[in-house]
Amino acid sequence: MIEQNPLIKQIIRFALEEDLGEGDMTTDAVIGPEMRGAAGLLAREELVLAGMPVFEQVFKELGSQIEFEEYFKEGDLVPAGEKVCLITGSLALILKGERTALNFLQRMSGIATLTRQYVEKVGSSKVRILDTRKTVPGHRWLDKYAVRTGGGTNHRFGLYDMILIKDNHIAAAGSITKAVKLARENAPQPLKVEVEVEDLEGVEAALEAGADTIMLDNMDLKQMAKAADMVKGMAVVEASGGITLDTIKDVANTGVDLISVGALTHSPKAADFSLEIVGA
Amino acid sequence: MIEQNPLIKQIIRFALEEDLGEGDMTTDAVIGPEMRGAAGLLAREELVLAGMPVFEQVFKELGSQIEFEEYFKEGDLVPAGEKVCLITGSLALILKGERTALNFLQRMSGIATLTRQYVEKVGSSKVRILDTRKTVPGHRWLDKYAVRTGGGTNHRFGLYDMILIKDNHIAAAGSITKAVKLARENAPQPLKVEVEVEDLEGVEAALEAGADTIMLDNMDLKQMAKAADMVKGMAVVEASGGITLDTIKDVANTGVDLISVGALTHSPKAADFSLEIVGA
Amino acid sequence: MIEQNPLIKQIIRFALEEDLGEGDMTTDAVIGPEMRGAAGLLAREELVLAGMPVFEQVFKELGSQIEFEEYFKEGDLVPAGEKVCLITGSLALILKGERTALNFLQRMSGIATLTRQYVEKVGSSKVRILDTRKTVPGHRWLDKYAVRTGGGTNHRFGLYDMILIKDNHIAAAGSITKAVKLARENAPQPLKVEVEVEDLEGVEAALEAGADTIMLDNMDLKQMAKAADMVKGMAVVEASGGITLDTIKDVANTGVDLISVGALTHSPKAADFSLEIVGA
Amino acid sequence: MIEQNPLIKQIIRFALEEDLGEGDMTTDAVIGPEMRGAAGLLAREELVLAGMPVFEQVFKELGSQIEFEEYFKEGDLVPAGEKVCLITGSLALILKGERTALNFLQRMSGIATLTRQYVEKVGSSKVRILDTRKTVPGHRWLDKYAVRTGGGTNHRFGLYDMILIKDNHIAAAGSITKAVKLARENAPQPLKVEVEVEDLEGVEAALEAGADTIMLDNMDLKQMAKAADMVKGMAVVEASGGITLDTIKDVANTGVDLISVGALTHSPKAADFSLEIVGA
Amino acid sequence: MIEQNPLIKQIIRFALEEDLGEGDMTTDAVIGPEMRGAAGLLAREELVLAGMPVFEQVFKELGSQIEFEEYFKEGDLVPAGEKVCLITGSLALILKGERTALNFLQRMSGIATLTRQYVEKVGSSKVRILDTRKTVPGHRWLDKYAVRTGGGTNHRFGLYDMILIKDNHIAAAGSITKAVKLARENAPQPLKVEVEVEDLEGVEAALEAGADTIMLDNMDLKQMAKAADMVKGMAVVEASGGITLDTIKDVANTGVDLISVGALTHSPKAADFSLEIVGA
Amino acid sequence: MIEQNPLIKQIIRFALEEDLGEGDMTTDAVIGPEMRGAAGLLAREELVLAGMPVFEQVFKELGSQIEFEEYFKEGDLVPAGEKVCLITGSLALILKGERTALNFLQRMSGIATLTRQYVEKVGSSKVRILDTRKTVPGHRWLDKYAVRTGGGTNHRFGLYDMILIKDNHIAAAGSITKAVKLARENAPQPLKVEVEVEDLEGVEAALEAGADTIMLDNMDLKQMAKAADMVKGMAVVEASGGITLDTIKDVANTGVDLISVGALTHSPKAADFSLEIVGA
Repeated sequence: MIEQNPLIKQIIRFALEEDLGEGDMTTDAVIGPEMRGAAGLLAREELVLAGMPVFEQVFKELGSQIEFEEYFKEGDLVPAGEKVCLITGSLALILKGERTALNFLQRMSGIATLTRQYVEKVGSSKVRILDTRKTVPGHRWLDKYAVRTGGGTNHRFGLYDMILIKDNHIAAAGSITKAVKLARENAPQPLKVEVEVEDLEGVEAALEAGADTIMLDNMDLKQMAKAADMVKGMAVVEASGGITLDTIKDVANTGVDLISVGALTHSPKAADFSLEIVGA
Repeated sequence: MIEQNPLIKQIIRFALEEDLGEGDMTTDAVIGPEMRGAAGLLAREELVLAGMPVFEQVFKELGSQIEFEEYFKEGDLVPAGEKVCLITGSLALILKGERTALNFLQRMSGIATLTRQYVEKVGSSKVRILDTRKTVPGHRWLDKYAVRTGGGTNHRFGLYDMILIKDNHIAAAGSITKAVKLARENAPQPLKVEVEVEDLEGVEAALEAGADTIMLDNMDLKQMAKAADMVKGMAVVEASGGITLDTIKDVANTGVDLISVGALTHSPKAADFSLEIVGA
Repeated sequence: MIEQNPLIKQIIRFALEEDLGEGDMTTDAVIGPEMRGAAGLLAREELVLAGMPVFEQVFKELGSQIEFEEYFKEGDLVPAGEKVCLITGSLALILKGERTALNFLQRMSGIATLTRQYVEKVGSSKVRILDTRKTVPGHRWLDKYAVRTGGGTNHRFGLYDMILIKDNHIAAAGSITKAVKLARENAPQPLKVEVEVEDLEGVEAALEAGADTIMLDNMDLKQMAKAADMVKGMAVVEASGGITLDTIKDVANTGVDLISVGALTHSPKAADFSLEIVGA
Repeated sequence: MIEQNPLIKQIIRFALEEDLGEGDMTTDAVIGPEMRGAAGLLAREELVLAGMPVFEQVFKELGSQIEFEEYFKEGDLVPAGEKVCLITGSLALILKGERTALNFLQRMSGIATLTRQYVEKVGSSKVRILDTRKTVPGHRWLDKYAVRTGGGTNHRFGLYDMILIKDNHIAAAGSITKAVKLARENAPQPLKVEVEVEDLEGVEAALEAGADTIMLDNMDLKQMAKAADMVKGMAVVEASGGITLDTIKDVANTGVDLISVGALTHSPKAADFSLEIVGA
Repeated sequence: MIEQNPLIKQIIRFALEEDLGEGDMTTDAVIGPEMRGAAGLLAREELVLAGMPVFEQVFKELGSQIEFEEYFKEGDLVPAGEKVCLITGSLALILKGERTALNFLQRMSGIATLTRQYVEKVGSSKVRILDTRKTVPGHRWLDKYAVRTGGGTNHRFGLYDMILIKDNHIAAAGSITKAVKLARENAPQPLKVEVEVEDLEGVEAALEAGADTIMLDNMDLKQMAKAADMVKGMAVVEASGGITLDTIKDVANTGVDLISVGALTHSPKAADFSLEIVGA
Repeated sequence: MIEQNPLIKQIIRFALEEDLGEGDMTTDAVIGPEMRGAAGLLAREELVLAGMPVFEQVFKELGSQIEFEEYFKEGDLVPAGEKVCLITGSLALILKGERTALNFLQRMSGIATLTRQYVEKVGSSKVRILDTRKTVPGHRWLDKYAVRTGGGTNHRFGLYDMILIKDNHIAAAGSITKAVKLARENAPQPLKVEVEVEDLEGVEAALEAGADTIMLDNMDLKQMAKAADMVKGMAVVEASGGITLDTIKDVANTGVDLISVGALTHSPKAADFSLEIVGA
């Protein structure tokens, strides 16, 4: 129900403004406002569907009485060539909203599809795939919604909903112990505390300081396995840094609980959709 | 001078809001507002730099007195491992703006870097590489600026600044001739008129209708060459549809004038940067 | 379909805010929310109708269920004393939206009516009447829409959709030739290039530099005729500067293609409408 | 100090957005960001200056370090041909803000100049010239500020700051007496109450009901004189409806206290300014 | 009809954004979007109802098709334990809007209830209870609407709709006489003029200067009585400063016309409501 | 550093707009823009200072060059009659921003002062005082910042940063066990899970379901003590519902870990400040 969020409506309006500007010069010149039409949304490759509520809200924002008949639902794996939904209404409005609506959908489904690939690689393991804050500015909530739709789990949404102590915080505080202590004392809420460490001494210090989660930053497989072994349920262990579809299975086998993958949101390939007018 | 644009300031503010929310819980808890620091922006892979004015504006928006010493400029090819700039000022503010600033920069430089690869593939040819409207919602002007910075050329910015007659417009109007005539008569400005065609009859009809530009949609190399030959300077010829780094050289050799590539903005890989605190 | 544009909705909201402030003190004190009424929109002088979709959107923005029966359509010449439309719904809402709705309509119809006068003066000539960027801040798209509705043609919408090289650009570049060359090389898109010139040497230089359009700035009739003769179809010729209803016919006879008239949007007389409650 | 108002900053930003769009294609292509220049603002006709703080704020909003040397101040009568101020700073920024800044200034000074003409017509009389709510949407406060600068007086700013009982309110309430009574009882504040009347019976009823101000709507001179005589200081008398520069002196002589003139803000002629680059 | 005001819609949207953020994590996880429910709004103490239109608009803003059956109307005294209205619709949406809607209602009804207490204390006296500008930022119009709903009268809404000359203005002008003269001459509108005075000399000076209203600032009862006696209908007299439920009756008996009470809006106790789901 | 947050800047702008409207009619009429002045901010009662960065930002937003000399810092207990800071700059600007700045400060310091009273009541106990989401719409982050400044701890900021399962969620899910299970499975992040219970069976069920925190809703002291005893460190225990300054010490003695108090933000008394011009 992400489309009910006032901030999502705002980014949709912003996107329409930048595409429409002072008007759709072609459609307004060529197509009468009274013409009705129907359009099929097609998946041109196999993909995980994400973003349909936003796709539809784009057209609703234009003020149109457009109707949608959906053949797949959020999170479905849509085979290449399948029709995802049928759109009926004013032909001019369908054409005006088309690109903006597709731009949302292709990114969100692209993220969901990529996430699904990572999730399937780790298979029956109980390791969870996490995203990061490496999202496109203004799309944080849409990007993270898409990760969930693809079967991933969200890491923190922003700087505000979790304590994550990184190297610079540790350097400023003097030690991991001091940094965790300061964080627990000064944080406005009893937020979870995660500590980023680079070696096994760091793991030990974070454990002793009482971190809820320990992030292993750019460790090799051997170190990760040792770290996971040291922690053994006393905290949650997250692997992070340069993990790809090729390496994720091995990382999952080290015994970590979470694997975060920046590429899910910073470098997804757009899912390939097209909108075909089927009747005017 | 893109950072002077009021709409760009607005998307920067929006991005900071979604990351900061009610505050940076870690930094506010651990790092005093009076601590000063310096951070080096590093390129962790070879890349074409794009987006530095936006990167810097993010920190300025936070109200900080942060200073920037730049070692490369927009459009430069930065070798892997090089320091791009040095940032000096309040340590807390640097940490609060870091991710948002990097999220802009990694996308924009990713687009510029990908564009440069396409431009270099066509080499000394005078064919120009164009982007499309397949951009991330809200980032149209930033995405297109990045394409230019990478050596590409911008296709239209939105539905408002060019007439582009597609199949649906032709179907609604009855024929290419009629659609072009309607467009020239009804368009508010003497905008350039481009017609999308799918075969050689289309090329002929578009030529006769007086199109300024003819877009060859998903034609094979042989057809493109014939089309380019038919047009011979009477209009501009644009190739479009599924063109990749592997095929672009052959397409360029068909004699077309422009090649548009959706992937530049819908599927760029984020350029890999990091921000390293070098002194607190 | 200009009222679908998100930015137009925003200026309507802004206008309602400035008129309503903390409420319509008179109507809220005197008229019950349940009273229904009808109002006739009257043209109190002959005018060209422009702005009805915006007029209606003002009332819709107030959240009312108001209905409109229209007797004329956009661009119609409405004789003095005619009823333009009938409005039915909550009486309080009609009164609250009245002034704001009329303020949009009287300006837009005023522009359309003035434009029609200029267009008729040049009569059967194929010369086109253009507007300028001398519009009221925030009303650019509404003003230019009104010009089109009156039979005029839009010059560029802003600094973004055309290259227009003026004296200052020429001075900075060193010469017309250099300025056009810089513009063609550096412009992000293959935009049309217009050059503003003040004498016949300028015309010649602009022609040689390959300008698409040449603007004759404040030339006398004789010079304009010579300029038009020199260009003879090699470029489009635009006359500009201080042209009035008295002089436009002579200017049109010089052979120029376009005549731009700042007064259309910087000094229109408001069209005279009134809203008469016809039944409560 | 109108430029300090947050809403005025907002309309300035909006105006810059509509003119700049994705950028000033000409200036960015032709003029380097490092070039400095100076420009003189010239009055090309005699005018009353209004709007300089807004004019200057436009450039400040672009983030520039531009300096202004002013030779006239708000409300001054500037002779034709005089230099109003000198602007020094980045040449590119001066060119980017030029049109938007002038569009504010030419409208505001046009209103002030027209107002001054009406004020001078009534001469030494103590009758005051009022504006109306017939302003351009979004410019209410700027328009009314310009009227004051021209020597006029502001009528109410919106529906919120005065009770003004018009014919429809009277019809709904049943009588002038009842409408005034309802207004006094229900109004949230002890606001002044004005009643619009169309004949002498109306004047009498309004007087008896205790109106603070009585607006004579479209009466002839004889009626106005009688009305003024009937009221004799028991209320303020305002003449309204179709009053022009030709008729205002006679209206003033009838003994009314206030004359409201819609044309001040609905149909001003733009004051003629130009910005001349004087050194680059 | 305050909920029609565009600015009120904006503060509602802002409030939903801050509560919903990236989503209602609990409801989205536990309750299906298709579940319907009903909820009763209960008054848990005796209160004066104010804010129902805003309460309902919160849910409408979420895009829901929620229906409201109201048992009390604005301004009603609701006994403790009574059901105020019944809400029917999507259960998830009711839960998402609940807290935001209640936060508006509890503040507005709290203000109305407190105002009613003051109004009842002065009883049959014709003294009116006024609010001040000591409102919560962004809630000025809602706070003042609530005061009216509780039977109070609004003092000025802001700095814009009345002249109120305070000690600092008097000091800057040199004397009360000069300050009033400057205000009458320079004010854009014939606004009412109120003068704040601290002693009886001030009252005399304000009277002579022709103030419409004289505000007695922090005077004792004896002084107030003398001041009221001195003024005797030549101006309106307002008592102000530290007046409480305990002292207001005595103040009213001094003969003043108005009593302003900052506590109405700066320190109201929230009215106690709850929303009980009655069927899912 | 809350004043750096873009959303806080927005609410400040909104507040200035509602107070300034079309201008400060008194100050603009009486006080010249060139006059400078100084003002002392005084605490008229003992209070805990909170909100100074917002107070100062109000003036900065007006564009002024105002300087602040601070004698107390956030969270300080300021004795009655003390000067909190000295403000120097344009007198007109100080007067224009005064009320808006004070309105923020009096609310925030009022909340901090009330919070301090609750915190001191529980004394040396390690029980923490929490706020709720019962905040003024648009002020959530400011209200919660003020609670922290007063020594309290923030409960969740919104619906987005914690799972809080209430009776309606339990009813919809069928049981506490099922609701917790759904929440853990479906929540996008590994958020903390709190369950609201009304009796000891609820406590037991919540414990078994693995809740991180258990909220005892409106239990009596005996039940709370039993509940605290049952939980004994296996979860965090929060007391909630109708707890006042009179009862909080007893509640703290039951052994609960957290006590949430809605009154902190829904019914604070404004702290009493005044701004005295000390030199003009």
